Amino acid sequence: MSISIPRGTQDILPGDVELWQQIENKARELCKKYQYQEIRTPIFEHTELFSRGVGDTTDIVQKEMYTFDDRGGRSMTLRPEGTASAVRAFVEKKMFGLAKQPVKLYYMGPMFRYERPQSGRFRQFVQFGVEALGSNDPAIDAEVISLAMNLYKEMGLQKLKLIINSLGDKESRLAHREALIHHFQPRIGEFCSDCQKRLEKNPLRILDCKVDRDHELMKTAPSIIDYLNDESKAYFDKVQKYLTLLDIPFEVDANLVRGLDYYNHTAFEIMSDAEGFGAITTLCGGGRYNGLAEELGGPETPGIGFALSIERLIAALKAEGIETDVNEGIDCYLAALGEDAKDYTVGLLQQLRSAGFSAERDYLNRKIKGQFKAADRLNAKFVAVLGDDELKKNVINVKDMATGEQVEVALESLVDYFRKLQQQ
Amino acid sequence: MSISIPRGTQDILPGDVELWQQIENKARELCKKYQYQEIRTPIFEHTELFSRGVGDTTDIVQKEMYTFDDRGGRSMTLRPEGTASAVRAFVEKKMFGLAKQPVKLYYMGPMFRYERPQSGRFRQFVQFGVEALGSNDPAIDAEVISLAMNLYKEMGLQKLKLIINSLGDKESRLAHREALIHHFQPRIGEFCSDCQKRLEKNPLRILDCKVDRDHELMKTAPSIIDYLNDESKAYFDKVQKYLTLLDIPFEVDANLVRGLDYYNHTAFEIMSDAEGFGAITTLCGGGRYNGLAEELGGPETPGIGFALSIERLIAALKAEGIETDVNEGIDCYLAALGEDAKDYTVGLLQQLRSAGFSAERDYLNRKIKGQFKAADRLNAKFVAVLGDDELKKNVINVKDMATGEQVEVALESLVDYFRKLQQQ
Repeated sequence: MSISIPRGTQDILPGDVELWQQIENKARELCKKYQYQEIRTPIFEHTELFSRGVGDTTDIVQKEMYTFDDRGGRSMTLRPEGTASAVRAFVEKKMFGLAKQPVKLYYMGPMFRYERPQSGRFRQFVQFGVEALGSNDPAIDAEVISLAMNLYKEMGLQKLKLIINSLGDKESRLAHREALIHHFQPRIGEFCSDCQKRLEKNPLRILDCKVDRDHELMKTAPSIIDYLNDESKAYFDKVQKYLTLLDIPFEVDANLVRGLDYYNHTAFEIMSDAEGFGAITTLCGGGRYNGLAEELGGPETPGIGFALSIERLIAALKAEGIETDVNEGIDCYLAALGEDAKDYTVGLLQQLRSAGFSAERDYLNRKIKGQFKAADRLNAKFVAVLGDDELKKNVINVKDMATGEQVEVALESLVDYFRKLQQQ
Repeated sequence: MSISIPRGTQDILPGDVELWQQIENKARELCKKYQYQEIRTPIFEHTELFSRGVGDTTDIVQKEMYTFDDRGGRSMTLRPEGTASAVRAFVEKKMFGLAKQPVKLYYMGPMFRYERPQSGRFRQFVQFGVEALGSNDPAIDAEVISLAMNLYKEMGLQKLKLIINSLGDKESRLAHREALIHHFQPRIGEFCSDCQKRLEKNPLRILDCKVDRDHELMKTAPSIIDYLNDESKAYFDKVQKYLTLLDIPFEVDANLVRGLDYYNHTAFEIMSDAEGFGAITTLCGGGRYNGLAEELGGPETPGIGFALSIERLIAALKAEGIETDVNEGIDCYLAALGEDAKDYTVGLLQQLRSAGFSAERDYLNRKIKGQFKAADRLNAKFVAVLGDDELKKNVINVKDMATGEQVEVALESLVDYFRKLQQQ
């Protein structure tokens, strides 16, 4: 009996994986230009990290985490997102003390949420994200947003929509919180039980409730924008000024609150506007989280970042009909006739590969016709044919598959022959 | 209170991560030359995959797996190795039916084993591995070994030792098994309880028991080499012939049995010979597993592969004292004086980055002296200084940090100026 892949996860196979590699290389290049450096944190963390770092009242922590006891009885959780881990490492490794500040990090890797699998939503998915820790300059908010936008643009996406909001500083949030409680309290009985709990714990969460989203009180709820104090307003203005300066169009959406507890000031989402993209249009989400390092036991440190899913980026490329074929051919296929010639190609293959060429030979004891077919499938630029006769004469026949031209080359010059062709 | 990283796992931080990237890029390049394509499988799989695919009697399955029930009550396990998952995908995605044969795959990613953490042994570690499925040609055994050896050599390792063995085909293994039982049975009471269980289930396992390794019967145990039938002997001879042809020195070690149940014919390990490398000297292990695809519900398919740990590769580099500094400087640091100039650098920075340069500005509201210090720390090749005066004149001062030379450049020509420098 065969064993299947776990539900909600996927294998990424040759033919598809090349696009993933291309996206990841693009992201790494961008990060180099922007001076974000990679950090790699473990796949699982102490469960407490996420309940504190993501927020006890979030759907992620309450319903979607892969939590288990390890063999030592400690509660571990497969990371549902990347920011908590990055900030945990920042605090634990005392990166706030580094000479190079702000600390600009990126990560790329699998995340895990136990959700109902649907189109574009997986239980294991890959996120690319950046975190800039230690700066309170609104220019870095704009930088972070522009990095995400540029990744999409460089991949060819055009139908993008950036929405931003400000959640303000503590004072502004507190004022808004009071207003929200005041707004919902009288009719909270009409809301779902989750929202009833949220009212006191975190009334902001009510605004992104999926159950009650059509309740009339949702539309008239007090907007955070109206409760920003002067400092918060000035900060938000600067972010918008820089985005304009960077030629990045955006819309302000006062309802954007994000699903995580730790955001303040700038919050943003990038969505796909492409037709037929489906229900889930958010490609990327991010924001400022100035309280998080302190919450995780570090010094007070401003921070901002985003996370984006590679799966959704790929879905957006498909929705916009962008050509993503990245299959290349190999340089040379070594075909051989006869036992001795076949043995000889083992060493010859190694010579070609050591010289930097991609090369292949037959491993299925195919006849010469079958070997040419295999070369075709690998899209070989050249096929070099060695028979026992050629072997005796120390030569090999090289066929250019584009022109059909054939040349006899001395066996010991084969690598040089390809080197010269390459230089032309 | 702060939260720490789980025991036995590690953060890989900027400064260290560059070496990881370099190794991974090297491995990917090699795979391209050798025509192995990447496959990505999930981090966790149904537990049954590993009990069947790795083997019920192995230490991995019996003692070291991270196994948990997901929220749907299904038993899942964090993958302890990569081969079972790759072959599961090969079977499930019917890759045996692809036109391109053999199917040559590689993977790179974290694996998980609950072991006592010690130097060079982590509970989460990263493996690079390849699998060639569908060929019974001994030349592909040699190719797989040479790929691993070449990765080490290209990274600069010199103190390497390759040991190989043959476990033979089913018939040979059966004959050997009978001989082992016959050998150990009379005195099995002197062995540990694990070994007593192994005697009937899988007596080969006794040979790599850590508890009983000094028992005198271990030294006199019948060697598989003496039980190879003609076909198995001929196969093993061919593998050795090809390794010699590829200039890869090796030793035959009849005691090499590998920790996994599914090996047959070729088994190999690459060890570090470097002084001070510590107790764990194995860098890479691999072998042939012709029965595995069938065991996992697929058609009978020959297969061979290896897995190597990046952590141990890095430890071996250190043990051999190989220089691995891969830190590069940035192209340009934009220093600014005054509010307007600072704002202006937001857009200028973007221009430089879009043109392909790595560039940075200040995000900490530093004075000019502090900005130069930051540029130094980033190892900037050039520092371009913009004051409000320069801004009015539409110029910027570019300082070559290697020569100290300064040039005034028109603001709109800054990108061109660097482009020209680059072409020189």
